[in-house]
Amino acid sequence: MANILVVGSLAYDDVRTPEASRDNVLGGAASYFSMAAALYGNVRLVGVVGDDFREDDIRRLRRRGIDTAGIERRKGRSFRWSGTYDFVTDAAETVNTDLGVFGDWQPRIPDEFADSEFVFLANIDPRIQLSTLEQMRRPKVVALDTMNYWIEHNREDLVRVMRKVDVVSINEGEARQLCQTFKIVRAAREILALGPRVLVVKRGEDGAALFTREGSFWAPAYPLEDTVDPTGAGDSFAGGFLGYIAECGGYKDVGVLRRAVLHGTVCASFAVERFSVDGILGIDRGAVDARYRALEEIIRV
Amino acid sequence: MANILVVGSLAYDDVRTPEASRDNVLGGAASYFSMAAALYGNVRLVGVVGDDFREDDIRRLRRRGIDTAGIERRKGRSFRWSGTYDFVTDAAETVNTDLGVFGDWQPRIPDEFADSEFVFLANIDPRIQLSTLEQMRRPKVVALDTMNYWIEHNREDLVRVMRKVDVVSINEGEARQLCQTFKIVRAAREILALGPRVLVVKRGEDGAALFTREGSFWAPAYPLEDTVDPTGAGDSFAGGFLGYIAECGGYKDVGVLRRAVLHGTVCASFAVERFSVDGILGIDRGAVDARYRALEEIIRV
Repeated sequence: MANILVVGSLAYDDVRTPEASRDNVLGGAASYFSMAAALYGNVRLVGVVGDDFREDDIRRLRRRGIDTAGIERRKGRSFRWSGTYDFVTDAAETVNTDLGVFGDWQPRIPDEFADSEFVFLANIDPRIQLSTLEQMRRPKVVALDTMNYWIEHNREDLVRVMRKVDVVSINEGEARQLCQTFKIVRAAREILALGPRVLVVKRGEDGAALFTREGSFWAPAYPLEDTVDPTGAGDSFAGGFLGYIAECGGYKDVGVLRRAVLHGTVCASFAVERFSVDGILGIDRGAVDARYRALEEIIRV
Repeated sequence: MANILVVGSLAYDDVRTPEASRDNVLGGAASYFSMAAALYGNVRLVGVVGDDFREDDIRRLRRRGIDTAGIERRKGRSFRWSGTYDFVTDAAETVNTDLGVFGDWQPRIPDEFADSEFVFLANIDPRIQLSTLEQMRRPKVVALDTMNYWIEHNREDLVRVMRKVDVVSINEGEARQLCQTFKIVRAAREILALGPRVLVVKRGEDGAALFTREGSFWAPAYPLEDTVDPTGAGDSFAGGFLGYIAECGGYKDVGVLRRAVLHGTVCASFAVERFSVDGILGIDRGAVDARYRALEEIIRV
């Protein structure tokens, strides 16, 4: 099995939706990503938690087969995020972010992780993404995510790290913000011109689009009657996407990338069906493959 | 060639977009629909215009091969619509609607049109849709569109006519409004339960979804770098959709319906590239087929 390294946040979330809410539940980009990617390969997680982080949550990661040797435990509070979703406007509002021990963290990649062939740099400070990359030996595929905060506050380093990665995976609003345009197609062209060979634009309930120099691929979201909690959809998508690429040993052709988009879509669909990581943790590879076939069927001409 | 009858509005529009505006240009559901459907079959247009309607616009319809014998000319003003588009919020705002001679119009289907096998009831008063249907002999496929106004003000007759048609083609907001739910999948189930065998949900820049009792099909919009004027996208979609079904002699299998969605998508993409009907009028069947193949390529797994 391929080795997939992820560097990103482990967090506790307070989430409000129009129908229900949960406090103090496991979240963070690295949690969602690794629990999805672990369905496809050996996941090595590099992150930081405070002394309030529950041992039980570490055990849940381990039971999924995730190597947690890269999780640093520090004095202080874990990263905390609280947010509210409005299903009418389809908008998420961050109520509060408390970086805690994540604030001044400098990830140190354990020696035994440095040979990982597949790397996901979750939406952390681009300077940290760069320093993580420098610690890797010779990764085959590096993917990165980012967020509005870094586009606004550290665009320069973000563009620098984008030049060094193979895959950029961002959401539609971020793509627009980064390129100051409302047209995804135009934004995609500009982002690919920065260096990455592959761009995935995540579009929430509207699906995802893949761009390479050769062309584009557009997939819908997996249609669900009920969405419980959209948190982690994008990172679960990235986990399925990069996980599938890792399972294939890389992306020799655009077919692998297209199927990877569908795997990402399927993982995201499970993630949003329950609060916290329960949706993605509640399924095995058989469930992914069954829903993958259903998704292929609804887009087949 | 199959005969396709359309009953709906011929209008003059004033359109404002963030980048440009046009006044007094040809619009109306029946104009867009017929100019798209004429790429696939013989279109017979039933509508009403005032004495301000330009002969030249009738000639443009005729040059497209559209039979205009069903256009009634009456004393008074033609239907006029003015609207503004905001590309940031992706919203359309109707500034003014002046029904003119369209207000108390009761369409009379010419005898020689009554045998049309394919019928499109554009978004007119559901009572008029019903009375039009009663004048048809034995149509093979009847499709209808509607709009928020009728959902709000005459839901009862709208549901009555929905029970009698094969295909309902509405936009996402209308589907949600009709079924009081934010989930398209749920709305689709409820609408199909009313009677129609086929539902198409038009989702603007997010594409279109097709629902039958057997399952669903999801297609993206054709990706464009520039959208000039979204007016008429839905009716051009319907023209390509029903036009292709007519060309196939009906929908024997779901494959026809899926390809029809792509034809609708392609026609809509041309419509929005220019103001008024210029986009859809500027292309021939060869252009449609070329873009159809490009669309198939970007959704192929």
